[in-house]
Amino acid sequence: MKIAIIGRGLIGGSLAKAAIRAGHDASAYDKGETPRVECADVVFVAVPPFAVVEVVDAVSPRLKKGAVVVDMTGIKGFVYEEMKKYALSKDFVFVGGHPMAGKERTGWANSCADLFDGASMILVPFPSCGRTPLDMLERLFRQLGFTRVVYTDPAHHDEMIAFTSQLCHLISSAYVRDDLAKDHVGYSAGSFRDMVRVGAPDPDIWTELFSLNRQALLPVLDRYIARLDDFRSALASNDVSRLHKALEEGCVAKRRVDGVDGNRV
Amino acid sequence: MKIAIIGRGLIGGSLAKAAIRAGHDASAYDKGETPRVECADVVFVAVPPFAVVEVVDAVSPRLKKGAVVVDMTGIKGFVYEEMKKYALSKDFVFVGGHPMAGKERTGWANSCADLFDGASMILVPFPSCGRTPLDMLERLFRQLGFTRVVYTDPAHHDEMIAFTSQLCHLISSAYVRDDLAKDHVGYSAGSFRDMVRVGAPDPDIWTELFSLNRQALLPVLDRYIARLDDFRSALASNDVSRLHKALEEGCVAKRRVDGVDGNRV
Repeated sequence: MKIAIIGRGLIGGSLAKAAIRAGHDASAYDKGETPRVECADVVFVAVPPFAVVEVVDAVSPRLKKGAVVVDMTGIKGFVYEEMKKYALSKDFVFVGGHPMAGKERTGWANSCADLFDGASMILVPFPSCGRTPLDMLERLFRQLGFTRVVYTDPAHHDEMIAFTSQLCHLISSAYVRDDLAKDHVGYSAGSFRDMVRVGAPDPDIWTELFSLNRQALLPVLDRYIARLDDFRSALASNDVSRLHKALEEGCVAKRRVDGVDGNRV
Repeated sequence: MKIAIIGRGLIGGSLAKAAIRAGHDASAYDKGETPRVECADVVFVAVPPFAVVEVVDAVSPRLKKGAVVVDMTGIKGFVYEEMKKYALSKDFVFVGGHPMAGKERTGWANSCADLFDGASMILVPFPSCGRTPLDMLERLFRQLGFTRVVYTDPAHHDEMIAFTSQLCHLISSAYVRDDLAKDHVGYSAGSFRDMVRVGAPDPDIWTELFSLNRQALLPVLDRYIARLDDFRSALASNDVSRLHKALEEGCVAKRRVDGVDGNRV
């Protein structure tokens, strides 16, 4: 299969390397280059949301008939709205995508063929899409290492990702900015290490992601702050039964996350 | 060396197994048992803070002259105050201790000889302690796998641990309690996994730890909530330059945490 990838960051680079590992003919282009998309069966657009719109508008006239274009950005509502004009196109098929994989270090230099091994690929197709391109994509994503392909709509995607990814990055960033963080050596272990890991997401990319997803992110953030405020007031009044109850609820929730069979996530 | 360990949880069990691995004669006793401390050169008290007081009071009359007793709890101010009555004892030496190692699954069944490999041991001795018992403890802790021994006072310990450990557990517990957490499968990856890992600390033990350390924890928690509130208001007004600035500050702080040489924690 001939695959063109636009974007040579962590995701674009890893898609290219994983595609080559799977035996495909893959080329990755910098956003500034003119990508050779004329013969591509699949085009992956691995650039931030606003740039997705520019890239798809620019390459769409040159696509092979029936080509499938998938973006890789972390928000889907904005992309879905912007790409609606192509939903009924007879020339190519657009599918929103979001690979659930990343690394705290970005860029081509950190990209790798196994980034997606074991990961989930989220697809947000238009209703007009039909099964044929999706079946092809499912096979392809499994060849790239993904072990799960889930389908959803933009609103559900954006709400879930606000919680499972964006809030985590926001929490980590807010945590690591405390003055005490710089003095951690000797006083820290695994929980600190995990908490700071994603504390430095690329400010350009993530400002755009947070801003475009603010309607989904705000209620998720508000609920989280409310739980912290509740714990804070229990702590301030030394209400040990409320502290205990909050921790117990966390245990119940954690067991649910880990699955009824007790498997860790 | 003859080592008695009181407490057969994760820490007590791991101390016993690490001591045996290092060739010592170590026995671990349940809090309810009468521990055979009469011949012990070192006694590790690996039970929660209030129980530390009971245990030390109970065993102190039976200790060998010159025995060194080290507690293993995660707060040191409370323990230091309670143990002050023994600071000038000619019969035994008490040293506050806190091993910077843990696991999300607790109890003897999850304890292991290598839990402390590469970890830091924090010691909070009384000024009257002198070097001899501390030199002995340093050698011993290195034999148990620790690669760093740091000395500090109770207030600094409790402030640092409020941030590097307690706040992390509180964050994780508050995070995992969101209703969306149970639907994460297919929508989650590494940042979610790290964020929920320590979300279910034992409610009995951690209510006690949080409550006893609330004076150190409250300002740390307040600063963290303030940074979240600030981000929240920037998000609500879609102030992208403030969002960007906050994320940039996180990047600076993360680099400082990782060290000037760029080594990861």
